[in-house]
Amino acid sequence: MQSKHSFSEEQKAGVYRAIKQRRDIRAQFTDEPVPEKLLNKLLVAAHHAPSVGFMQPWNFLIIRDQETKNKVYEGFAKAHADSAEMFTRDKRETYRDFKLEGIRESPVNLLVTCDRKRTGPVVIGRTVQPEMDLFSTVCAVQNLWLAARAEGIGVGWVSIIYEQELRTLFSLPDSVAVIAYLCIGHVTNFPEMPELEKAGWLPRLPLEELIFYEKWGKTLHHKV
Amino acid sequence: MQSKHSFSEEQKAGVYRAIKQRRDIRAQFTDEPVPEKLLNKLLVAAHHAPSVGFMQPWNFLIIRDQETKNKVYEGFAKAHADSAEMFTRDKRETYRDFKLEGIRESPVNLLVTCDRKRTGPVVIGRTVQPEMDLFSTVCAVQNLWLAARAEGIGVGWVSIIYEQELRTLFSLPDSVAVIAYLCIGHVTNFPEMPELEKAGWLPRLPLEELIFYEKWGKTLHHKV
Repeated sequence: MQSKHSFSEEQKAGVYRAIKQRRDIRAQFTDEPVPEKLLNKLLVAAHHAPSVGFMQPWNFLIIRDQETKNKVYEGFAKAHADSAEMFTRDKRETYRDFKLEGIRESPVNLLVTCDRKRTGPVVIGRTVQPEMDLFSTVCAVQNLWLAARAEGIGVGWVSIIYEQELRTLFSLPDSVAVIAYLCIGHVTNFPEMPELEKAGWLPRLPLEELIFYEKWGKTLHHKV
Repeated sequence: MQSKHSFSEEQKAGVYRAIKQRRDIRAQFTDEPVPEKLLNKLLVAAHHAPSVGFMQPWNFLIIRDQETKNKVYEGFAKAHADSAEMFTRDKRETYRDFKLEGIRESPVNLLVTCDRKRTGPVVIGRTVQPEMDLFSTVCAVQNLWLAARAEGIGVGWVSIIYEQELRTLFSLPDSVAVIAYLCIGHVTNFPEMPELEKAGWLPRLPLEELIFYEKWGKTLHHKV
């Protein structure tokens, strides 16, 4: 039986479609500008994320300047070279072949941060789990990502860059943590599958093996 | 100009509505059961979250057993009592008056975890930002939360409980991190505003003060 608070079929379909068709975009950005008004809609979506103790700890730094993007790209390139060395020889070349960011090609870059001191030292819900404000900010990223998909806008999360690189480049205050560096823009297309899945790097896991019932490790068909 | 990849107006409205009408539910749960099939739809949504290196590091432990819920509630009560002492005297009573969880009243509890070793030690995109797998799992929580809102189902995130309490109670392996303990169920209503906003604990911040342009601290109307 359906809840009386549920959305219409078409609105529900929109939510599930955004969730399932969202992709991490790296290679598909076009140079079509992203209007300020549209970007603002995405930021409003981010701003409505759940936040521990209603702390709203996030900031959004919008970067359109190509010189700044180039500097961030240099930071990526350094971390990417370091990272390649961490893979075993048989995976290293495959790793190097992946396109893992669209920093310079995407019209908008967005640095999402978390101000850990925004509302003082004691925050409801963060008293015994101090990482909760970081998690709130991640929820803001995911809201933005889904709203972007609904608008037909691509987003890519660049995590191959040293936090210190971004801290220095943007002169971040000590109280602020880096959560995400995002590339945002129109796209030629949204790939049908995640790129690492398509490339055979890893398969999508069967969900039923990830769900446990009452006890750790107890799947539907497998008693502990 | 609208992207050719954008959703229909009604589907877009669904996405924005889920984002804006999502609430952290504590006091509004009813005892109407949540069908397995519906819960599974929410878990499919979670499973389609972005994950660093396509790691899909999450597990979902479904708890319907009242005795287990009672034990988790005891853990909450202990952390809640400790937390109250952290607030200044003038805020302590207000803090104690808030209802901050619906562990025993919600038909389904869900422990969401992150297996940090799921795909081995080297993960694409987690090489220099080791917390990325935790963030992926938070994205899974937010997907579930939004899908739940679209279905008219309430979700509350309980963060006032010591991680060690949950580790012990559910015998979690060392490689697994606790990300979220969620309460899930039908609701009498979705409050119009976040409860802490309504209670005047903190106001919603003006978004324009949180957006910077090109440089840290540079808002639209305020040069650094």
